[in-house]
Amino acid sequence: MAAASPLAPERFPELPPIAGVTLASAHCGIRYPERTDLMLALIEPGSAVAGVFTRSKTPGAPVDWCRKALKHGKARAIVVNSGNANVFTGKRGRDAVAQTVGAAAKLLGCDPREVFVSSTGVIGEPLAAEKIVAALPEAAAAARPDGWTTAAQAIMTTDTFAKGATRSVEMRGARVTVNGIAKGSGMIAPDMGTMLAYVFTDANIAAPALQAMLVAGNERSFNSITVDGDTSTSDTLLLVATGKAGNKRVTRADDPALTAFRRALDEVLVDLAQQIVRDGEGAEKFVTIAVSGAASPRAARRIGLAIGNSPLVKTAIAAGDANWGRIVMAVGKAGEKADRDRLSIAVGGVPIAEKGGPLPGYDEGPVARHMAGRDIRLAVDLGIGRGRWTVWTCDLTHRYIDINGSYRS
Amino acid sequence: MAAASPLAPERFPELPPIAGVTLASAHCGIRYPERTDLMLALIEPGSAVAGVFTRSKTPGAPVDWCRKALKHGKARAIVVNSGNANVFTGKRGRDAVAQTVGAAAKLLGCDPREVFVSSTGVIGEPLAAEKIVAALPEAAAAARPDGWTTAAQAIMTTDTFAKGATRSVEMRGARVTVNGIAKGSGMIAPDMGTMLAYVFTDANIAAPALQAMLVAGNERSFNSITVDGDTSTSDTLLLVATGKAGNKRVTRADDPALTAFRRALDEVLVDLAQQIVRDGEGAEKFVTIAVSGAASPRAARRIGLAIGNSPLVKTAIAAGDANWGRIVMAVGKAGEKADRDRLSIAVGGVPIAEKGGPLPGYDEGPVARHMAGRDIRLAVDLGIGRGRWTVWTCDLTHRYIDINGSYRS
Repeated sequence: MAAASPLAPERFPELPPIAGVTLASAHCGIRYPERTDLMLALIEPGSAVAGVFTRSKTPGAPVDWCRKALKHGKARAIVVNSGNANVFTGKRGRDAVAQTVGAAAKLLGCDPREVFVSSTGVIGEPLAAEKIVAALPEAAAAARPDGWTTAAQAIMTTDTFAKGATRSVEMRGARVTVNGIAKGSGMIAPDMGTMLAYVFTDANIAAPALQAMLVAGNERSFNSITVDGDTSTSDTLLLVATGKAGNKRVTRADDPALTAFRRALDEVLVDLAQQIVRDGEGAEKFVTIAVSGAASPRAARRIGLAIGNSPLVKTAIAAGDANWGRIVMAVGKAGEKADRDRLSIAVGGVPIAEKGGPLPGYDEGPVARHMAGRDIRLAVDLGIGRGRWTVWTCDLTHRYIDINGSYRS
Repeated sequence: MAAASPLAPERFPELPPIAGVTLASAHCGIRYPERTDLMLALIEPGSAVAGVFTRSKTPGAPVDWCRKALKHGKARAIVVNSGNANVFTGKRGRDAVAQTVGAAAKLLGCDPREVFVSSTGVIGEPLAAEKIVAALPEAAAAARPDGWTTAAQAIMTTDTFAKGATRSVEMRGARVTVNGIAKGSGMIAPDMGTMLAYVFTDANIAAPALQAMLVAGNERSFNSITVDGDTSTSDTLLLVATGKAGNKRVTRADDPALTAFRRALDEVLVDLAQQIVRDGEGAEKFVTIAVSGAASPRAARRIGLAIGNSPLVKTAIAAGDANWGRIVMAVGKAGEKADRDRLSIAVGGVPIAEKGGPLPGYDEGPVARHMAGRDIRLAVDLGIGRGRWTVWTCDLTHRYIDINGSYRS
């Protein structure tokens, strides 16, 4: 495995147990000879589930299945394999999903629609579902409430570190916890549901309310990051609520009792999304792009993503060059309302361009020091409205090309 | 200067004189110490002019000027400097344009609206227009009918070779010629007017007909290429018709007398556009993406550009990897109608995936040999309609990052 990204967090966080959830990982030998490649999450009866999926027009068979299963609103198991995405595999791909779902449902004695599956890895090769089916019984027997780290490891592909996040808050007199794990490193782009991310809580919340919160939180987290502007065919974000925390059940997303929970959920989503950027293929710098003064929040996000997806901006950042001319270019190409003569740009908190021109004689020293660091902050103000959004991305380095020129070989 | 792109044509083509046009180049010292950086094209009275410009929302001052001047419909001079784009330079930028235009108009005794200007190079630094003004008289005196090569050289920035193209056809009993020169290497993307390109003809065609043909031709040439998905703030394509060829004047774009001319113009535009891709920053491979079976030609182009802009597709091509899984991904993210189960892909003429799945046992030998070459041909059939379009791009290599990590330093 590649060395951990220089932007990786110091350690995987301590994720407390979530009552009603146990996890296991296993080695099925789908692709990687020497590591786990199967994650199994078991959920006790009575849970609610929400989900967001890729907006790709060529999604994988597992995504098709999850979309259908989600209508049932309940989850008993999540089965995820790495190494093979089961995408563009035709009827065999659908069969592989049916095999996996059927075996898990039989094992747990549940409705097949309560089994969610994801696959991540190479596209266009048949998935050997029988390897997953064979590994399921042992994995189910081994599932533990503290299996978060190994679960997060089992779903990695080109990731260099396992990704997890947790928050706890009070809710209607009960302590509720939100745990999440995620994977993602390349093929990370806007317009997605997300990469693979699984969030669990013991809160007692009905599925429609969960779904509404997840969709909203996803916009400001996974849908606000980009590594390479490429959208995966497998993006999946699931949120499971076991209801074991003991709080009085909440059924409506606009219930004030959800305020603290919503904030905790959003924080977990943003935390995981940022970790995916920090593990962006070849990333050497983590970049926060704060856009303000745009015509609308939506416009601010599109402008932020145009900056974050620009290869010229990303290569300049890799070189430590505060090349705001390229930022101007990216603002211009975003297709959103912009007025060259009202545009202001700050790098690392230092204003370097204002109202359509460079600030004469700004102090280049602090800017150069900021650009030499790991955490780059760009602020762009359009000067025409009140729309604001924050987008996260990474730089574009030689290592990105190395990684993606050799992924299949 | 960097070594010429491995995809460069063998030589700059022989461009015959265009009656009514003379060209000169000069060294003004705007940025480059040891090469020419000013191009001047002089046009005799009586010409017609058409133009297409960047769709950037932050265009440079020269683009603003050209848009305004174009309404007048006549051209006496085109002044182009390289080394400085005069973009995001505020009022000083507008003053620099006014200075240049004023000096040229005075020199030629013409209306300022008959002087077109372009600037290309670094963004956000004030342009020393006085250097251009000082060089104009000598350049005007030195202008020659055969100055095409040196003119094309003077407008280069990160280009590694000068770009020109020519075609001649019969039109209403007269022989008419179309000559074009262009520059462009990075910041090349869809949704642009184009990079800098200047096309001249001796045909006698009224400005509205010229404009209609230019807009149409631009769609299938400059608007169908991408190097890095970044759109320049300076993109300019001008077409000047001197009317000296002796053909009876054509005033309507739908006049059948224009059939051969339109084809010649389109060929010159496509030729120049392909040369820009062949000089794409860091390019090692020239990639033709033919999309068919899409819901509409527009959908086919968007899908082609999604493939051509995908860093994952481009890095795979750089590595000689016929990674059609990434092509599927790019089709999926384009946002156009697609049906995974009807999609077919061929590489170098060899079908490798059909109707939603890999073709079992296709012969990898010829595909691998094709991918090792310089000219890569991808064909994607959506299987749902009759829309087709061809897009050209290049691969994404380490040299792209080298070039763009050091452009300002």
